[in-house]
Amino acid sequence: MALDSERWFSEPFSEEGVAFSLEVTGKLHAEQTPYQYIEVYQTTHWGRLLVIDGCVMLTSRDNFTYHEMMAHPVLFTHPDPRNVLIIGGGDCGMLQEVLRHPGVERCVQVDIDEGVTRASERFFPELCRANDDPRAELLFQDGVQYIQDLPAGSVDVVIVDSTDPVGPAEGLFGEAFFRDVYRAVADDGLIVQQSESPILHVDTILKDLHTAMRGAGFSRVATLQYPVCSYPSGWWSATMASKGADLTQFREADAVSKPFKTQYYNAAIHRGALAVPEFCRHLLTDQ
Amino acid sequence: MALDSERWFSEPFSEEGVAFSLEVTGKLHAEQTPYQYIEVYQTTHWGRLLVIDGCVMLTSRDNFTYHEMMAHPVLFTHPDPRNVLIIGGGDCGMLQEVLRHPGVERCVQVDIDEGVTRASERFFPELCRANDDPRAELLFQDGVQYIQDLPAGSVDVVIVDSTDPVGPAEGLFGEAFFRDVYRAVADDGLIVQQSESPILHVDTILKDLHTAMRGAGFSRVATLQYPVCSYPSGWWSATMASKGADLTQFREADAVSKPFKTQYYNAAIHRGALAVPEFCRHLLTDQ
Repeated sequence: MALDSERWFSEPFSEEGVAFSLEVTGKLHAEQTPYQYIEVYQTTHWGRLLVIDGCVMLTSRDNFTYHEMMAHPVLFTHPDPRNVLIIGGGDCGMLQEVLRHPGVERCVQVDIDEGVTRASERFFPELCRANDDPRAELLFQDGVQYIQDLPAGSVDVVIVDSTDPVGPAEGLFGEAFFRDVYRAVADDGLIVQQSESPILHVDTILKDLHTAMRGAGFSRVATLQYPVCSYPSGWWSATMASKGADLTQFREADAVSKPFKTQYYNAAIHRGALAVPEFCRHLLTDQ
Repeated sequence: MALDSERWFSEPFSEEGVAFSLEVTGKLHAEQTPYQYIEVYQTTHWGRLLVIDGCVMLTSRDNFTYHEMMAHPVLFTHPDPRNVLIIGGGDCGMLQEVLRHPGVERCVQVDIDEGVTRASERFFPELCRANDDPRAELLFQDGVQYIQDLPAGSVDVVIVDSTDPVGPAEGLFGEAFFRDVYRAVADDGLIVQQSESPILHVDTILKDLHTAMRGAGFSRVATLQYPVCSYPSGWWSATMASKGADLTQFREADAVSKPFKTQYYNAAIHRGALAVPEFCRHLLTDQ
């Protein structure tokens, strides 16, 4: 059957011949910023839907898997994360997850497009509850430039919460960017980058990302898998890198006794997400 | 944008306001059997697509996660599975995975609809390579009746590879059916049932399934999660039950040294799939 475009928002991913659709009751917002086209819809069963340049960014109902799996594994892998930097993340959901960690003293969010944050504050207030936290700093500028200007070794964890590697986010997937990150993080510093779909991108984006991170000097790279219903294939990944720390080990006791609630993440889920499917084994060269 | 029904096959899941679509180049087969309406499409990027009563059953490209995660975890959890029974599974992909285990002496597949198997032999020959295995027996009859007629304690593992719990498969999700299974399996016998989407069905089908399995006498129940791109939400589950055996333990050394190749399953994936997301914790009463 055809999906009526009045009733359904559809994101076709033509390179892979697959589309994801949500039933909507109306469009709440549409805005062309200097960088991107932002839309917000009301859906029938998934709460509100944020779309940038035609791609689903998040829904109220299922964003928890993405935000939790990008924030908590890397933060529980680092021995003592105090200074955290988010590149992208304009919807502020990542900032909120990071600041659930009481040990974090400062979290800077650098998104090039202030329009995303203003739309999120208006339509996704549940993601923006930490925006006024005194440890939070929201900057609206180019993240690549920001990293280049940082003192060497000044950051503990960098979370790259970017859109797909086309358009504004393209520079966030290349070796030059990771060299800047390598310089900016401390010796025990970590980076995590959203790394698209294992089944769709294992031999393209994921492989290139591993190569670029290693090329930049990160000697350990590990990819976690987790579900994100509203992204192409419903199956997503996050790729962490370190200057030597074993990424398969984490502060498991701290994860078990974490002083905050989650909907998806826990220590067993963290360990499970590190399992590498057979068809992805060739990504691994050091584990 | 609208998805043109000439170019896209769409499965809307209206109760949850979500739809999944694949780009197709043509319909290869359509058949009304006494039980169901079967269609086969050629897709642009996912190989062939099998549809029953409008619902995606499998694609050539992504069926491996489902078949492997329904077959191998339960078979590596049982200490020595020799007699295996598949209820449903007419596409024969499950039979093929089961018979990769050299210790299995007999695998009976009981699907009510011979039309599914004949369509699969014609359009998905890669799933039917074990149909002529001397250990395989293909029966086309009612699985509920078949189980009732089995001698007590005569089966090691029952795999319920059914369609959704509406229509022909409805009886395969109820306590009466699981009581029949309980009688048919040996003391160390196990059952696994495909149990739909964790995010969509945790408080409906999944909760009811746990209750029904326990009500039938199975004292341990455990749900595994894994991705199936082409099913609603892209996030799927399998629920195992035992008469007392700890379902979190399995023959891990055997899984590591398995004498066959897989695309998704391995011992680490098995352990990882047993991790229970925070929002599913209330399903667990014995772990």
